[in-house]
Amino acid sequence: MEFYEIKHQLNYYECDPAGHPTLSTLINLAVLAAEADNQVNGVGLATVNQFGGGWVIINYAGNLSVHTARKEEELKIGTRVESYNKFFIIRDFYVKGPDDQIYAEFKGTFVFMDLVKRKIMTIPQAVIDLFDMDPVRRLPRLPQPGDFERSPEWDQQTYRVRYFDIDMNGHVNNAHYFDWMLDPLGGEFLSHHHLVAMRITFAKEVRMDEIITSSVSIPTPLEDGRLMTQHLIEVDGEISAKGENYWIPLEK
Amino acid sequence: MEFYEIKHQLNYYECDPAGHPTLSTLINLAVLAAEADNQVNGVGLATVNQFGGGWVIINYAGNLSVHTARKEEELKIGTRVESYNKFFIIRDFYVKGPDDQIYAEFKGTFVFMDLVKRKIMTIPQAVIDLFDMDPVRRLPRLPQPGDFERSPEWDQQTYRVRYFDIDMNGHVNNAHYFDWMLDPLGGEFLSHHHLVAMRITFAKEVRMDEIITSSVSIPTPLEDGRLMTQHLIEVDGEISAKGENYWIPLEK
Repeated sequence: MEFYEIKHQLNYYECDPAGHPTLSTLINLAVLAAEADNQVNGVGLATVNQFGGGWVIINYAGNLSVHTARKEEELKIGTRVESYNKFFIIRDFYVKGPDDQIYAEFKGTFVFMDLVKRKIMTIPQAVIDLFDMDPVRRLPRLPQPGDFERSPEWDQQTYRVRYFDIDMNGHVNNAHYFDWMLDPLGGEFLSHHHLVAMRITFAKEVRMDEIITSSVSIPTPLEDGRLMTQHLIEVDGEISAKGENYWIPLEK
Repeated sequence: MEFYEIKHQLNYYECDPAGHPTLSTLINLAVLAAEADNQVNGVGLATVNQFGGGWVIINYAGNLSVHTARKEEELKIGTRVESYNKFFIIRDFYVKGPDDQIYAEFKGTFVFMDLVKRKIMTIPQAVIDLFDMDPVRRLPRLPQPGDFERSPEWDQQTYRVRYFDIDMNGHVNNAHYFDWMLDPLGGEFLSHHHLVAMRITFAKEVRMDEIITSSVSIPTPLEDGRLMTQHLIEVDGEISAKGENYWIPLEK
């Protein structure tokens, strides 16, 4: 399938203190592009809502370039359905700069969720018929965070889910998980490291007024010079999301 | 002076659960327009930084229409310097919809701040010379929140200032104050009332990792049918910002 592309001028309020887009901004833009692509393909919100369902993302994984976007640049955000079966859709995403330099490439897995029961359902055949491609038997599996458990030396912060974290669908905009996930690393780490790869899986929705705990491992040096951090987002000890991020130290 | 206008497509992630722009989104867009206007007039960031200063907002006041913007609309955000003297600049702002219907009109007062000492300084004459208008002796004073004190029955919430709340200038993006200010009203109130007027004054900067307390009065019915709420943002008992908001109940 062809990539569908939107353009977006990167505004100051979508950037981190260094003037680069936050990861949550990139995810917001990716979802914006995916919704536009769905619309063009006839499987937008209005159509899928008729089937009582909506697209819900269950994981993301991908890479970010060291030379990243800057405030005021016009970005190109591309997306396409890479493959699907009756339960899952894998989407490709890219974020490019004005000269088509690649800032980020990642994939996400979408499911079709019954909006009343909040349960995953099979993608309705009438919706599948609108895709201009055949389903596949074996879907590629996105890289997942490894098996790990929180240990006592991890840093953590708590966050209450706020009214303005809630989306028009009445649920938390998933992009907020990225801010919750990274914030406990603290300003000293975040201002001296660049995120080059990320993996996140969403396990359970969080709701307004719930207190979430975001915990992060001590950054672990890898043989290739990168640092790895592992992340848990929990509510009452139950895992809501799990992440693994890879960083390189910034040159002074 | 002429209004300078930018256009902005309202994205889903800039909206509240009802699909309308949050107040913090409107303020973000207003500042975006003001920066673009300054740029065009030769008093943009690059120029004023040469004088060791930057534009800092000290208050906003204005009105919002009941019929407000909706997700995906193309908004027009206009601004102009209305008047100034050697200490203050009053800016006019409007937010209009696709058919030029007015969604919001407000004013803001800017000062010129020494970015090292974090103190207000006189606007350099070389900057003033770039304005295509004369200074005025008496500046209009924006409506301010009234005299009030927090009382024990007020609702309150605490917020830690997060890494991603910080702007490229190393300070908290003022728009976040609006989310902190309104969030303690709770989903039940916020989803059943529409904000029609606001006044806010900023007294003292908050810093990363500080815990701010946002408290809000019990909504007071006024004779004209509106409700008034009063707001304090405090750090360690010291006032950082003060607000007064006016609401009308939404029709079912």
